[in-house]
Amino acid sequence: MSQIDKTIGFIGLGAMGLPMARNLIEAGFKLRIYNRTKSKADELIKLGAEVVDSPAAVAADGIVVTMLANDAAVAEIVTGKDGIGNALGQNGIHLSMSTISPQLARELAELHAQSGAEYVASPVSGRPDAAAAKQLTMWVSGSKAAKERMMPVIAAMGRGSSDVGEDPAAGHIAKLAANILVLNTIEILSEVLIFTEQSGLDPHVFADAITSTMFAAPIFKTYGDILASGKLPDPGFKLSLALKDMNLALNAGETSQVAMPVVSVLRDRLLVSMAKGRGDLDATVLQQSVREDAGLPAIRQP
Amino acid sequence: MSQIDKTIGFIGLGAMGLPMARNLIEAGFKLRIYNRTKSKADELIKLGAEVVDSPAAVAADGIVVTMLANDAAVAEIVTGKDGIGNALGQNGIHLSMSTISPQLARELAELHAQSGAEYVASPVSGRPDAAAAKQLTMWVSGSKAAKERMMPVIAAMGRGSSDVGEDPAAGHIAKLAANILVLNTIEILSEVLIFTEQSGLDPHVFADAITSTMFAAPIFKTYGDILASGKLPDPGFKLSLALKDMNLALNAGETSQVAMPVVSVLRDRLLVSMAKGRGDLDATVLQQSVREDAGLPAIRQP
Amino acid sequence: MSQIDKTIGFIGLGAMGLPMARNLIEAGFKLRIYNRTKSKADELIKLGAEVVDSPAAVAADGIVVTMLANDAAVAEIVTGKDGIGNALGQNGIHLSMSTISPQLARELAELHAQSGAEYVASPVSGRPDAAAAKQLTMWVSGSKAAKERMMPVIAAMGRGSSDVGEDPAAGHIAKLAANILVLNTIEILSEVLIFTEQSGLDPHVFADAITSTMFAAPIFKTYGDILASGKLPDPGFKLSLALKDMNLALNAGETSQVAMPVVSVLRDRLLVSMAKGRGDLDATVLQQSVREDAGLPAIRQP
Amino acid sequence: MSQIDKTIGFIGLGAMGLPMARNLIEAGFKLRIYNRTKSKADELIKLGAEVVDSPAAVAADGIVVTMLANDAAVAEIVTGKDGIGNALGQNGIHLSMSTISPQLARELAELHAQSGAEYVASPVSGRPDAAAAKQLTMWVSGSKAAKERMMPVIAAMGRGSSDVGEDPAAGHIAKLAANILVLNTIEILSEVLIFTEQSGLDPHVFADAITSTMFAAPIFKTYGDILASGKLPDPGFKLSLALKDMNLALNAGETSQVAMPVVSVLRDRLLVSMAKGRGDLDATVLQQSVREDAGLPAIRQP
Repeated sequence: MSQIDKTIGFIGLGAMGLPMARNLIEAGFKLRIYNRTKSKADELIKLGAEVVDSPAAVAADGIVVTMLANDAAVAEIVTGKDGIGNALGQNGIHLSMSTISPQLARELAELHAQSGAEYVASPVSGRPDAAAAKQLTMWVSGSKAAKERMMPVIAAMGRGSSDVGEDPAAGHIAKLAANILVLNTIEILSEVLIFTEQSGLDPHVFADAITSTMFAAPIFKTYGDILASGKLPDPGFKLSLALKDMNLALNAGETSQVAMPVVSVLRDRLLVSMAKGRGDLDATVLQQSVREDAGLPAIRQP
Repeated sequence: MSQIDKTIGFIGLGAMGLPMARNLIEAGFKLRIYNRTKSKADELIKLGAEVVDSPAAVAADGIVVTMLANDAAVAEIVTGKDGIGNALGQNGIHLSMSTISPQLARELAELHAQSGAEYVASPVSGRPDAAAAKQLTMWVSGSKAAKERMMPVIAAMGRGSSDVGEDPAAGHIAKLAANILVLNTIEILSEVLIFTEQSGLDPHVFADAITSTMFAAPIFKTYGDILASGKLPDPGFKLSLALKDMNLALNAGETSQVAMPVVSVLRDRLLVSMAKGRGDLDATVLQQSVREDAGLPAIRQP
Repeated sequence: MSQIDKTIGFIGLGAMGLPMARNLIEAGFKLRIYNRTKSKADELIKLGAEVVDSPAAVAADGIVVTMLANDAAVAEIVTGKDGIGNALGQNGIHLSMSTISPQLARELAELHAQSGAEYVASPVSGRPDAAAAKQLTMWVSGSKAAKERMMPVIAAMGRGSSDVGEDPAAGHIAKLAANILVLNTIEILSEVLIFTEQSGLDPHVFADAITSTMFAAPIFKTYGDILASGKLPDPGFKLSLALKDMNLALNAGETSQVAMPVVSVLRDRLLVSMAKGRGDLDATVLQQSVREDAGLPAIRQP
Repeated sequence: MSQIDKTIGFIGLGAMGLPMARNLIEAGFKLRIYNRTKSKADELIKLGAEVVDSPAAVAADGIVVTMLANDAAVAEIVTGKDGIGNALGQNGIHLSMSTISPQLARELAELHAQSGAEYVASPVSGRPDAAAAKQLTMWVSGSKAAKERMMPVIAAMGRGSSDVGEDPAAGHIAKLAANILVLNTIEILSEVLIFTEQSGLDPHVFADAITSTMFAAPIFKTYGDILASGKLPDPGFKLSLALKDMNLALNAGETSQVAMPVVSVLRDRLLVSMAKGRGDLDATVLQQSVREDAGLPAIRQP
């Protein structure tokens, strides 16, 4: 690890950010943190993190990791009062790990460039438990030098990363594409599991059969088990955030002029689930709408 | 292998049936075959198969495997003139491996029961090259005794089978569900690969990234490579048959009163590809419609 | 009216057929009727209709009107035991008013031609109350001479007819297209009325505004009032039959290789309503699914 | 007309705004105008309009009509440098006729309220030729007093208006809903006309039949003729603006938690047309994508 980046700033101590920050400390980094709700910082302070009063102060050593909820939160941290925008300075790097719009990524990259800093996209795929277990996958893009410099930081938080190019937006586009695949998996497994069950098959038998042969990927196994059981896991991937992501994906698709009809179906399914008051639950809860559309109770009776 | 089933009948020597029949002979079965176009039988005759003049004659030893194109073809072979319907007799078994409607399966099972014979569903997943390599996956349903008796026959043609219950329709329902998952994979990979490419990513880089992490299943790897390259494979799974299957799936979904909106999108995408004259090509050709919808030429320029 | 057609056969005394038959008698025609459930014929007998024992007997005078539920029912009446197929004879006419598949229409036309008879399509648009009030619209196709000869019969049952060509299937295709437009009207009005209502507008105010200006057609007025009130009319157009029609339309679209994505959405919406046990209600009940998808009770509270 | 509003400001002299402004002058109003491209103002200057240097100057007499392209343009005119936001003053009224998001309308209403001014929504339905002919329909919302005061202004530009409530967003919601109905009409007529034509019917015959009976509304007649002829009218309703509107509608639907699956299909259809380079053409050009999806050339050969 290069000497210069031993201390790094970290903003965003939510369900994902907190375990990610913990892993950085564990890997030997010294953290400078800022969080609107200070209580969340307590655990990290005990582990040696230094709390500062503003985003700008977090940027003092030239590296800031952001892991926030949406475009507005990231934009505010960068361009708002005492934002990191002017504080990163020459050779500074903004390691942006939130799921945000490709367009904002490009805007922030331009803005950072004005003060000689760089933007490295590194949004993550994985739930909070994967964050805790250092099992996240990162989608990384930016200049070669900046990506190389950030590798030890990124490596400390996940099990692997994919370099998807130099465009600051590329990492975010790849992340949105990955999330499309995840939500599509939930939707199509829900459709076929309820179809086969209503046609007389045992959902576990079919889920096992399909995920032990043609679709023997971990993600199919995981979601197949969850959906066949009908039990709802802790909200690792909140439905409301899944809807946010599909909107970002559809907007990015419009920018690139690519229609994605299945994504439109996913978006509508998630919106229906929101309307039914399930926005704070895990995204697999969309299965309940598939069940209701089949005239079944939302939750399978044991 | 029980003595009684050393000789079995086989009807349907198409792109799938021919290598399947060859594998049965190789496994030591004696085949009695019937095919409308006799030339196709030549190779099997050299291998020792006996050609007979009617479906009924094929059924002489009580076991008939059918591997035909659609409902109409299977119904004709069973209930048509000199059909196997009356010829199987007490303890006979119709091992039905075609992709047909669950409803026809139930009707044939009832019909066979009248003469003391049984219906075992065993439709296959896999392309002709998988058939040749004994790499098919079978979806088996029927009475326990009949399934057990058919296991040596089934095992001689594939690498594994999933027992999905006793309902004669269950195997066919599982097969349709499996095909939904396959076509959904082609469609959603097409959508995200063209989305990421038009957003500036290299399609191979993204395809590799996604299929080496979260979606590391063989089917994602295979289709990811095909679709990222933009090259069209030999028509292992003809688009026109894929459309047939999605129609069967939607009809079976209606019988079970389960709406599958993504399957409706798949069905419409396949129909558009048919209308563009691509029905005889491999189903991955649907990607060309996704490209055209993005204002791109159907085939990527190298 | 030509002498020869004073007496005509009529098969199918359902919710639509009964008032249509009554109007024929009222217009001076002598009816020969056949119905599986004889009780339904009582009223017509009092009005002078003659009941006979078989479809074939109905065809004695060379003209038969059929108004039945679906393809299977019409096919049975024509080609079943004692069907009208062989009974119409030279110069006979089958005036086919049911909503059936274009494909069956072509098959029946060929079959009738073998005995020198002709097929005239004349499916109707309109609910039972429109049938009673002679306010049906007919979609007529067939040979010019046959259509001309049938005009007095058709005119006695509706307020107007559209001649859509000579192809025996054309009338049925036009009817399916008209039904697409009707169901699309119900769906899109449901979507916008619930959207505007949930956005704070009064549904009656918006429905009145839109149907008194740009969309001032009777059908928009009628459905706008029904849907804004949230009250369910008598099942003039049963939801289960609407689903049947959309399936016929999608199948006919496949034959002509025309994808209709909005029709696929309509079909899925109707199937969801079926699954929820609303198949016997008026098709406007699909609005309840739109409401449920918005997190609202199926029926608006007064 | 009340004395105080004899002079009004007008901003936005595009294809719609110019004829609307002309009609105001013709009705006796004195106009104070501002336009970024001053050449467009020439014609109005000849008719007596006064050109001023800033939006704020336009607001000098307390009434400003805005007719601009999108949210960003309206927000800039109100809150930008020398915007009308601070210039309207006590009793001022912003008559907002652009198609903008309900959310921006609410924000602007709050902003104007801070200086004692009011926001009246009055977006219009109709093409430029309807604007020229004073045949626009307005969707009006705002406080009763303000709406009443604006009635002479509104009446001078259209043939009628619908009062849809007091919520400043209501007019915009109604406008979006009206546009949904218009685009749905174009899409569904395209689907059924191409379906019937490919099934052998003459498109003019079917279009005439349907629009002279059940769907005898002016809008069906107009679009039925356009679409059956296959000719493309001048871009009265540009496809790119139609896509903008459907995005606004889907976003507003999300705010109100109402999924509109048919609107999602419309949005995707418009995006495909954009990708094919048809964004500057009339929205009826979406028919060309329906034709291409049916394997036909985009434009019907005569």
